[in-house]
Amino acid sequence: MKILITAGGTREDIDSVRGITNYSTGRLGSFIGDQFIQGGDQVTYICSETAALPNASPHLEVITIRSVAQLQERLEQALYTDRYDCVIHSMAVSDYAPYATASLGGLSVDESSVDESFTNECSMGELSVQLRDLSLTKLSDGKISSDSPFLVMVLKRQPKIIQRIKEIQPDTLLIGFKLLSGEDEAALAQAADKLMAQSHADYVLANDLNNINGDVHQGTLFSRDGVIGSGNSKYEIAQMIYNLVKNRKVTDYMVAKDEDVK
Amino acid sequence: MKILITAGGTREDIDSVRGITNYSTGRLGSFIGDQFIQGGDQVTYICSETAALPNASPHLEVITIRSVAQLQERLEQALYTDRYDCVIHSMAVSDYAPYATASLGGLSVDESSVDESFTNECSMGELSVQLRDLSLTKLSDGKISSDSPFLVMVLKRQPKIIQRIKEIQPDTLLIGFKLLSGEDEAALAQAADKLMAQSHADYVLANDLNNINGDVHQGTLFSRDGVIGSGNSKYEIAQMIYNLVKNRKVTDYMVAKDEDVK
Repeated sequence: MKILITAGGTREDIDSVRGITNYSTGRLGSFIGDQFIQGGDQVTYICSETAALPNASPHLEVITIRSVAQLQERLEQALYTDRYDCVIHSMAVSDYAPYATASLGGLSVDESSVDESFTNECSMGELSVQLRDLSLTKLSDGKISSDSPFLVMVLKRQPKIIQRIKEIQPDTLLIGFKLLSGEDEAALAQAADKLMAQSHADYVLANDLNNINGDVHQGTLFSRDGVIGSGNSKYEIAQMIYNLVKNRKVTDYMVAKDEDVK
Repeated sequence: MKILITAGGTREDIDSVRGITNYSTGRLGSFIGDQFIQGGDQVTYICSETAALPNASPHLEVITIRSVAQLQERLEQALYTDRYDCVIHSMAVSDYAPYATASLGGLSVDESSVDESFTNECSMGELSVQLRDLSLTKLSDGKISSDSPFLVMVLKRQPKIIQRIKEIQPDTLLIGFKLLSGEDEAALAQAADKLMAQSHADYVLANDLNNINGDVHQGTLFSRDGVIGSGNSKYEIAQMIYNLVKNRKVTDYMVAKDEDVK
């Protein structure tokens, strides 16, 4: 079989020395690659420069990318050139890329009035009021200085790369990945359903950051009919996906489910 | 001698899966570390997780950090605990860290009116007008959705870590680093002077991204009196800094300069 795997995380430049990076290590993707290579399959592995790689093999082709645009270009090139039996899209792809920045030299925030949730996301309260007022005077003056106490960056949504896969190769088996943070099983199922609907993925491996720590990596595999398997380590998840692609079923889990039915 | 070297680039989390990363590889810092370790000196090496390391040695202690706050904590801890003969601060430290975000769902930009400079920095023209208008209605509604076509992120300036070094150990020899992009020699000199004035660094290694490519790495070493040396590779720069710290002069360059005077 010919298998296309994406792994690692994209990065979007802010300028020539810094950017927004997705932290994914690519280790799960490398384990999946190892499974198929050991099984005698041909693996094309599109990954970030720092991603973990499958073990070297004549059955492995590695294509390195940085940005979402480069991912799209190389992925489409591969899909237009070769017919893949399966595409396993485990790469963490930036949702947003830097689009524009502006300085906000005069912005002053009363820190005592800012609660902890402001650190990562906020748009209400003192900050928004002051930002709103200042945006009127500051966002149009055109000067960007590293001496400014605050910068405002506008980020633009990136295209959903996963949607291109079935558009180009409708018959390939597509396995998508969804990573959540601090959500319950119901939210995982909902996110998996949404991704399958948007991308026409056949299966989605959903996981939650709270259940990933060193060797422990809990992942749940969904089809359109619901949960079809789960794994507790990167190795188990890689095996499960390999079994699914080769046999079109996740053996252990299917057996257990059949027994429940009897 | 006891030498403290910082190397690599810091990263500031946006959320649990992505952040703003400085791209520095730490290779120059690792070469500098190698020089001192070979010279029999004791090296404390504070670096990012992905930074290049000096060759393993009983004379090498590695301390790993991610964020600017962690860098500050571990650097201050080291400086309060041990007396260092020299601190070589080659790490690329984030100027700004994410502070708050807001969605701008309704923002629509006429792309045809946006010139290329908008990609990295802009605050004028169509975008700023629309952003200004929309910030009035959108920045106070509190909802952040990944379905929004644009996000606005407020970044807050970080403390200048290099200034802490001489505050804690006024007698240590401090070598700062300044990286510019597409500037001329005069701008390098000006930036070096500014950094020496702000941080009380004794010397500054100034370099420009346009003159760094693979094995080529042009760097100019400044004292308060002006240029005292230059190198054309990471290895040459590392040797130059080693000679400076050990002999308090950059031998080759000083000889050449003396001859000019004769």
